[in-house]
Amino acid sequence: MSIKIGILGYGNLGRGVEKAVIANDDMELVGVFTRRDPASVKIDSGAKAYNVNDLSSMKDAIDVLVICGGSATDLPEMTPKYAADFNVIDSFDTHANIPVHFANVDKAAKAAGKIGIISCGWDPGMFSLNRLYAHSVLPGGKDYTFWGKGVSQGHSDAIRRIKGVLDARQYTVPVPEALDKVRNGENPELTTREKHTRVCYVVAEEGADKARIENEIVTMPNYFADYNTTVYFISMDEMKAEHSGLPHGGSVIYSGTTGGNTNADGSTSKVNKHVIEYSLNLDSNPEFTGSVLVAYARAAYRMNQAGDSGAKTVFDIAPALLSPLSGDDIRAHML
Amino acid sequence: MSIKIGILGYGNLGRGVEKAVIANDDMELVGVFTRRDPASVKIDSGAKAYNVNDLSSMKDAIDVLVICGGSATDLPEMTPKYAADFNVIDSFDTHANIPVHFANVDKAAKAAGKIGIISCGWDPGMFSLNRLYAHSVLPGGKDYTFWGKGVSQGHSDAIRRIKGVLDARQYTVPVPEALDKVRNGENPELTTREKHTRVCYVVAEEGADKARIENEIVTMPNYFADYNTTVYFISMDEMKAEHSGLPHGGSVIYSGTTGGNTNADGSTSKVNKHVIEYSLNLDSNPEFTGSVLVAYARAAYRMNQAGDSGAKTVFDIAPALLSPLSGDDIRAHML
Repeated sequence: MSIKIGILGYGNLGRGVEKAVIANDDMELVGVFTRRDPASVKIDSGAKAYNVNDLSSMKDAIDVLVICGGSATDLPEMTPKYAADFNVIDSFDTHANIPVHFANVDKAAKAAGKIGIISCGWDPGMFSLNRLYAHSVLPGGKDYTFWGKGVSQGHSDAIRRIKGVLDARQYTVPVPEALDKVRNGENPELTTREKHTRVCYVVAEEGADKARIENEIVTMPNYFADYNTTVYFISMDEMKAEHSGLPHGGSVIYSGTTGGNTNADGSTSKVNKHVIEYSLNLDSNPEFTGSVLVAYARAAYRMNQAGDSGAKTVFDIAPALLSPLSGDDIRAHML
Repeated sequence: MSIKIGILGYGNLGRGVEKAVIANDDMELVGVFTRRDPASVKIDSGAKAYNVNDLSSMKDAIDVLVICGGSATDLPEMTPKYAADFNVIDSFDTHANIPVHFANVDKAAKAAGKIGIISCGWDPGMFSLNRLYAHSVLPGGKDYTFWGKGVSQGHSDAIRRIKGVLDARQYTVPVPEALDKVRNGENPELTTREKHTRVCYVVAEEGADKARIENEIVTMPNYFADYNTTVYFISMDEMKAEHSGLPHGGSVIYSGTTGGNTNADGSTSKVNKHVIEYSLNLDSNPEFTGSVLVAYARAAYRMNQAGDSGAKTVFDIAPALLSPLSGDDIRAHML
């Protein structure tokens, strides 16, 4: 018996979820739900496209609805709404608003007896897990998160809004010296500028003032002003040939200690340093994120089958629930 | 209210657990239990030493008993035995015997209404978690585990048993070329010899036949014969000055793909590669292992308080149960 998955929203992330469902033998894709006219949306795999309003009549046809919307306006409204009828999962990543979003989803999901997993993906998601495991094992240490080298879609969009820009791609790049210090367990204090640089590839309109465009980029508040930013102007051909992918990744590095306590004889035990690092090197950010969502969709289904309900995050979910394999199999092959 | 911890066994691992309990404010160390005469055992922190037979009268004084014994003979007997009276946790690492050990502990713990966590530490333990998460997110990929650079106590002991050897320290070292290939996502087939080398520091007796000792080491079946092994003879002074620690670590590297499926129009979607790496760089193997055991002891206590019982592994335990912080706090600070 397959787990029946619905996808709400068909952008890059929805396509990533689609591929992940196909890659998992215990799952089937019921369909893709869109706010557009379904006849205008071609689903890569040939799955059926529905209008989002069709969801109201498909409550029994879908085990888990994967909501692929934006964190700014879509998810705060959609995830609680659909948690009233479906087990749902999203990748909500507006950090400051997680408590409110969790509370809203929890209320709706508990009332409906459904599971609502929020903020799932790699950050928040796999990176969050690694922060939690490390802090729990070595209390009192310090975690560092580096992103990249990878494409930031938000920063690329910000450049595209500048007058005279035809296309742009922005790579976030960790500063190697900062990474080295953290990996050495030196626990440095790092400013925003010391952690990451930003590298921009820009296609300008014929005759555009490149000096003005570059200046508008590097001085842009929030996005670029606090970083060392490099701008390269390239041709549209080079943009298409060299920068069409959406690679990303990064590292969570945690540095902590054991020992250092006072012994009964008045001596102090030796302080031992430990460094824990979790790194991702991803050819496709949306396909990896989609894969994480689908593994957690399996957990959502199982938790609900076991009678659980309410909002959950990756912190609340036992790892075994993510695997299609039995407890015997995972103990035999992965423990 | 503190979680009351008992430690059974006071070698390197027991001392690591002791330091971890001291580092966690929500825990207290009830005492250390030993098969030796307790009067002969000095506990570093000043905690009380008891004879192991005293455990039978202390069922209500201990919330979780951390069993620090060897996997060969101690744990298969002790963990099921004490699971009949206590929530227990061990670091059982004889891989082939995990199914039997799990079944034995499960039976005893279920009958007693207690929790028994087995095979906890970093491998098995944190490394296992990373194998499971990666396989679940990217089905069909391949995991590689590299150990070191670090001291293997079993291999060091094996050298010490050779005639003419006064002391020895064996370092397991990953082969850099193998690590590079795996990190590149090349999915190489690697022999034992291609993955790790073994480097041995040996103090020989005055006048001992060093050529014979070296030959006995490098040809030793199971331990060294399948590896490229280097032997250095050093003085006892150098051994004490340079090789007194028990550093260890390693990496779990997983390489998987997304895409590659056939689309409705007959085309094949692009294959994207993803590499996930989890690495540990530990100054003290037993202190880090002890820290993992103590974080999972907290989970054992909480699961039992919530009415759960039976054998568990790291796979069965939601990450939030490891943290002393509330769900609100971990969502706000680590998600």
